[in-house]
Amino acid sequence: MKTLGIGLVGSGFMGRSHAYAFRAADAVFDLPVRPSLEVLADIDDNTAAKAAPSLGFARSTGDWKALIADPAVDLVDITAPNALHKPIALAAIEAGKPVYCEKPLAPNAAEAGQMVDAAERNGVMTAVGFNYLKNPMVALAREIVDSGEIGEIISFRGIHAEDYMADPSAPHTWRLEPAGGHGVVADLGSHIISIARHIAGPITSVVGQIATVVAERPVRPGASETRPVEVDDQARALIRFDNGATGSIEASWVSPGRKMTLAFEITGTKGTIFVDHERMSELQLYTSTGQAAGRQGFKTILAGPEHSVYGAFCPAPGHQLGFNDIKTIEARALMLALADGPPFQPDFREAWEIQRVVDAIVLSARESRWLTVTDI
Amino acid sequence: MKTLGIGLVGSGFMGRSHAYAFRAADAVFDLPVRPSLEVLADIDDNTAAKAAPSLGFARSTGDWKALIADPAVDLVDITAPNALHKPIALAAIEAGKPVYCEKPLAPNAAEAGQMVDAAERNGVMTAVGFNYLKNPMVALAREIVDSGEIGEIISFRGIHAEDYMADPSAPHTWRLEPAGGHGVVADLGSHIISIARHIAGPITSVVGQIATVVAERPVRPGASETRPVEVDDQARALIRFDNGATGSIEASWVSPGRKMTLAFEITGTKGTIFVDHERMSELQLYTSTGQAAGRQGFKTILAGPEHSVYGAFCPAPGHQLGFNDIKTIEARALMLALADGPPFQPDFREAWEIQRVVDAIVLSARESRWLTVTDI
Amino acid sequence: MKTLGIGLVGSGFMGRSHAYAFRAADAVFDLPVRPSLEVLADIDDNTAAKAAPSLGFARSTGDWKALIADPAVDLVDITAPNALHKPIALAAIEAGKPVYCEKPLAPNAAEAGQMVDAAERNGVMTAVGFNYLKNPMVALAREIVDSGEIGEIISFRGIHAEDYMADPSAPHTWRLEPAGGHGVVADLGSHIISIARHIAGPITSVVGQIATVVAERPVRPGASETRPVEVDDQARALIRFDNGATGSIEASWVSPGRKMTLAFEITGTKGTIFVDHERMSELQLYTSTGQAAGRQGFKTILAGPEHSVYGAFCPAPGHQLGFNDIKTIEARALMLALADGPPFQPDFREAWEIQRVVDAIVLSARESRWLTVTDI
Amino acid sequence: MKTLGIGLVGSGFMGRSHAYAFRAADAVFDLPVRPSLEVLADIDDNTAAKAAPSLGFARSTGDWKALIADPAVDLVDITAPNALHKPIALAAIEAGKPVYCEKPLAPNAAEAGQMVDAAERNGVMTAVGFNYLKNPMVALAREIVDSGEIGEIISFRGIHAEDYMADPSAPHTWRLEPAGGHGVVADLGSHIISIARHIAGPITSVVGQIATVVAERPVRPGASETRPVEVDDQARALIRFDNGATGSIEASWVSPGRKMTLAFEITGTKGTIFVDHERMSELQLYTSTGQAAGRQGFKTILAGPEHSVYGAFCPAPGHQLGFNDIKTIEARALMLALADGPPFQPDFREAWEIQRVVDAIVLSARESRWLTVTDI
Repeated sequence: MKTLGIGLVGSGFMGRSHAYAFRAADAVFDLPVRPSLEVLADIDDNTAAKAAPSLGFARSTGDWKALIADPAVDLVDITAPNALHKPIALAAIEAGKPVYCEKPLAPNAAEAGQMVDAAERNGVMTAVGFNYLKNPMVALAREIVDSGEIGEIISFRGIHAEDYMADPSAPHTWRLEPAGGHGVVADLGSHIISIARHIAGPITSVVGQIATVVAERPVRPGASETRPVEVDDQARALIRFDNGATGSIEASWVSPGRKMTLAFEITGTKGTIFVDHERMSELQLYTSTGQAAGRQGFKTILAGPEHSVYGAFCPAPGHQLGFNDIKTIEARALMLALADGPPFQPDFREAWEIQRVVDAIVLSARESRWLTVTDI
Repeated sequence: MKTLGIGLVGSGFMGRSHAYAFRAADAVFDLPVRPSLEVLADIDDNTAAKAAPSLGFARSTGDWKALIADPAVDLVDITAPNALHKPIALAAIEAGKPVYCEKPLAPNAAEAGQMVDAAERNGVMTAVGFNYLKNPMVALAREIVDSGEIGEIISFRGIHAEDYMADPSAPHTWRLEPAGGHGVVADLGSHIISIARHIAGPITSVVGQIATVVAERPVRPGASETRPVEVDDQARALIRFDNGATGSIEASWVSPGRKMTLAFEITGTKGTIFVDHERMSELQLYTSTGQAAGRQGFKTILAGPEHSVYGAFCPAPGHQLGFNDIKTIEARALMLALADGPPFQPDFREAWEIQRVVDAIVLSARESRWLTVTDI
Repeated sequence: MKTLGIGLVGSGFMGRSHAYAFRAADAVFDLPVRPSLEVLADIDDNTAAKAAPSLGFARSTGDWKALIADPAVDLVDITAPNALHKPIALAAIEAGKPVYCEKPLAPNAAEAGQMVDAAERNGVMTAVGFNYLKNPMVALAREIVDSGEIGEIISFRGIHAEDYMADPSAPHTWRLEPAGGHGVVADLGSHIISIARHIAGPITSVVGQIATVVAERPVRPGASETRPVEVDDQARALIRFDNGATGSIEASWVSPGRKMTLAFEITGTKGTIFVDHERMSELQLYTSTGQAAGRQGFKTILAGPEHSVYGAFCPAPGHQLGFNDIKTIEARALMLALADGPPFQPDFREAWEIQRVVDAIVLSARESRWLTVTDI
Repeated sequence: MKTLGIGLVGSGFMGRSHAYAFRAADAVFDLPVRPSLEVLADIDDNTAAKAAPSLGFARSTGDWKALIADPAVDLVDITAPNALHKPIALAAIEAGKPVYCEKPLAPNAAEAGQMVDAAERNGVMTAVGFNYLKNPMVALAREIVDSGEIGEIISFRGIHAEDYMADPSAPHTWRLEPAGGHGVVADLGSHIISIARHIAGPITSVVGQIATVVAERPVRPGASETRPVEVDDQARALIRFDNGATGSIEASWVSPGRKMTLAFEITGTKGTIFVDHERMSELQLYTSTGQAAGRQGFKTILAGPEHSVYGAFCPAPGHQLGFNDIKTIEARALMLALADGPPFQPDFREAWEIQRVVDAIVLSARESRWLTVTDI
């Protein structure tokens, strides 16, 4: 069987998650290609060498350029800090190697656009890790919408709220660097935007509202010295879709008690869908037609073998997939695409489209006015 | 014991609900005053006479002016069609009689403002039926916020969605008359705005988005002839509060499957509250402090005797109040106010404030720009 | 219109609830008869006289025999302490007057049987207040079962758990008097048994298990002196139904956090129903047939105008009924029955049947063996 | 690093799940030993050879005896059909090799007891795959109970209901062979019994009730010829624990709509715990103490890094584990035990104890009487 040599840049949480996903995909699915974990790169030789065995990599390096140059590396997988996404991706593209990059692609749409241009000019396959799109319940939502079961979409309400920055004593971090892009609207908001676009199509205009609730944070854990926070930790927008539907987007990382509220409600003319990733193996469905009088209600559909690739994980319904399983499904989709299967989505172009919406929300909020997304 | 002579204008659903509420309040609570259902007025003598016995009224009339003039009538209770709210209220105020009026007070803020002026000039007590404010779980939300248990409010997300107009074959009705005011943003949106203001304080600016999803409707049930719909059936707004918090409001009567989703989430710096009226005897509460590591979570608080006046209905917790019980609590508050107890809220002035937000949302949507509410 | 003269014995919580229910039924429904609250009786003249006005009664007495003898009293309504149920009911029956009695009818099946005999011998209409049977969602469960929508019933699991005796410092009360009958299995268990019989039919045999978790309680609030508890505060039974189905019953008043968990799951060969009174306006329904592949799930049906008499309370679905509304529906059924409408259920005979199951569970538990209910 | 040579017998669903779990455990955790998938055995050479690559095994064989004899095999992992569990396990024990066996160990307690004896006589480590015990939320339930947070346990109610045999046209299968043991009480009931024992301790007596709802099934899919079903498809029992607590157990594989209802409620004198594996990353907790008046309620705790080994899968709470992750945690526990870490539970002895309860329930049901478990 053909193998796919993986070169992974970054051995932090997402790096570990990617390494896991490739190995798990190999164990769960019958794929036409097998992943081979060839090279792990990190900030220096030592760090990389230390992490390589536990992540399952054969070799390691402190130089990501060497990783790209390595002939055994067929896919360059980027989970490095955000600021490195662009240079590494461009170098890989230059070398003609497919790129799998964690989100966000870049700190803003302009830079993401340069990455798209490079990839398309070089005809290089690209993939971006908006993993929740691979949740079978998101796939089911898309399938229900596409089939017309809930009629025409008239509204989309999406939110991604967590609370990992809710504590004002949580220190300043790289996430809060304005040079790295926007705040929660980029970090979490991009996920819900990716779902909105995936299911309801292009977003054409927005009016945004952003807030920085915690205005300064300790420079280090426990430090009395503080540093101002210059990015948003709450964001909202009203949105219009190309198909005429309207809706809203919300993102917050200062929402006490919300641990993984990546939730959306899609209203159609004939029905409604609701999904919340705190119960990510469930989808709530209401249809106006086909229910007898006195027997109408939202149905709770539990993920099972009828939904996407769930059956490869477990033959019985209701047994649930977890966060890492979703990443495993992403790795599968990527390996299939690299083995001449269906193209992987979202690619760099789609990630750029998502980033345009992010940028539009922030700019719109700053200027207190509606903006057309294609003007970004 | 003193009695309070009630004169009710309107014997439709809300009229019946008011009549019920006065009688139920008398049965449930020990009040310093007893309601006496004196006169029922409706469109003509016959209609009024037919309804009076089943609603429990002693007399009836086809002329609401006679009702106001009746010396036995201490309180003028208006549940007549919206277009009549203003003339009846103004006449009652002129006669120096307290007024209890169903929402909406008027089709727009300007007319509502005239009613406020008249009432305040004449020193007449007024009350408006934003009944959900009387739900003990809404009172609990307010209490939790006021006590500081969830810190400073940083976000309010409110929605009132139902589906009674979701079917495009549902005929054109008085609710859709543009002369009667706005559409769902006035009918349902005003409820969630009333809650937002009650708990989080004045709303200072908004940017709205409205949509008319069903563009025309049959002129009568089953008719092939249709009439255009000129009011909104979906509305959303981003909002800013006087206290600096931000948030959003949404209203829809074309939300398939949503029967009574009057729901709100209040995010504070130290906790979160969530209430949904489809389960109106529950409140979800998360607090960042006071929970041990590994034991944190949203708590589902069931309404019980510790909450507001629940105990007058049932001495045991979790046994639930219903829609009519909330109206009964409203009637109680009104009778207490009329017996020199605490003033009733919301009064005409508060209803005018709510209407200003409604108008601002619609105007802002039409002009695609942020508006300052006090400019309305 | 005909009136129905009510004589109520007992002005405690249940007495107040009955008085409320008659008045509310009159306000909510168009009934062929109007309730007239004639006489209230209580332990002595003074107590009765004090309570009468607030409960809305015209007259009062310290002598329940006088109440029965009062010619204006058409219905004797008993909410007196349990020990008085029998003598009052027998006297009313002797006087040929219909009786409406709170549950439990009597401390044991033998005494309940004597009451049944008397009533049937005298041809007197009887009614017992198993109010939850009047919840429209319980009625819906029955309707779904009767219609065959979930096939043949194969299992019934019922529980009634609360926590009002969970605190061991809660003092000894009349509920714990063994002379008054059994403990929680009679107090709460009888409710779930009434539902089991109502929906799944006669219970033929049981094996019970009872426990007294709090073995002694203070004789008074705060007292250091304690008194042994001689009745059960936890009870369970396996049961067999006449129709071949099997199941279980559980009751507890020492279940921390359970405030009104009167819940049941009915399993049929083609579907399942679940209802929990902590969300008493919802019914969960799953049907094996009529759901497309990948679209199967439990449906949450919200109570609405299609269900029983909900529409008389509110024309819109999802707005919820409360505890007192259910009692109002019971009062309506009673008044209809007394106006030559459909006979009221449950009557004394049905209450005796329920009591036989209660007794069988306790005896079976004490003897650690299966018992046939008809042997009781 | 030391490696652990795995010999796996069986390449069906559970075999694949085990192979996955070892690989995933290696990817997720930092373990002192690495799994090496050495030999896969199946019914014949061909079947084994075909499955080996996709399961990741280096070699394959049609002879499980050869697998046991293979010097590279350090652990014999049995996922073969139930009837083979005993002979393979005994042979492995004879060879002095640790055994990891899927449940059920044996068709009855007597045979399971022989396996315990052999293992203990030979000092061989054993492990049985009651995987749900490894769910961090089950571990949390145990931790809460052990810490005394909910006081003394007074009740345990457990159920495992699914619907994979609810359709009467589902054909006869090996699961229904009486020679293979009991029906659903063994297949699903054993899981809930394992949890009951894990958290509440030994079960000392039971009275059971079993039913065969679908009395005959097609011999093959679609066949008109049927074969009688001789095992239970519904089972219930009342139980007594050694510590004085009481409770109930229920199992069903004919419960329409229930896909993975492995649920339990543990009632203590000071609190209550509820877990349902259809939402297996949640635990509901109520504590009587430490909650202010009016703020009491069940808390929904979402699995997160504070709970057991969740953090190795994901650093953020609420992101959820899935069915396979639980099996991965089981593999980890096993590898740790084999590397001189804490002993693995449940071992053969514990599985035998569980089987005794299963047997007692069935025998008790057949004889319609209470049985002492230690008499089995």
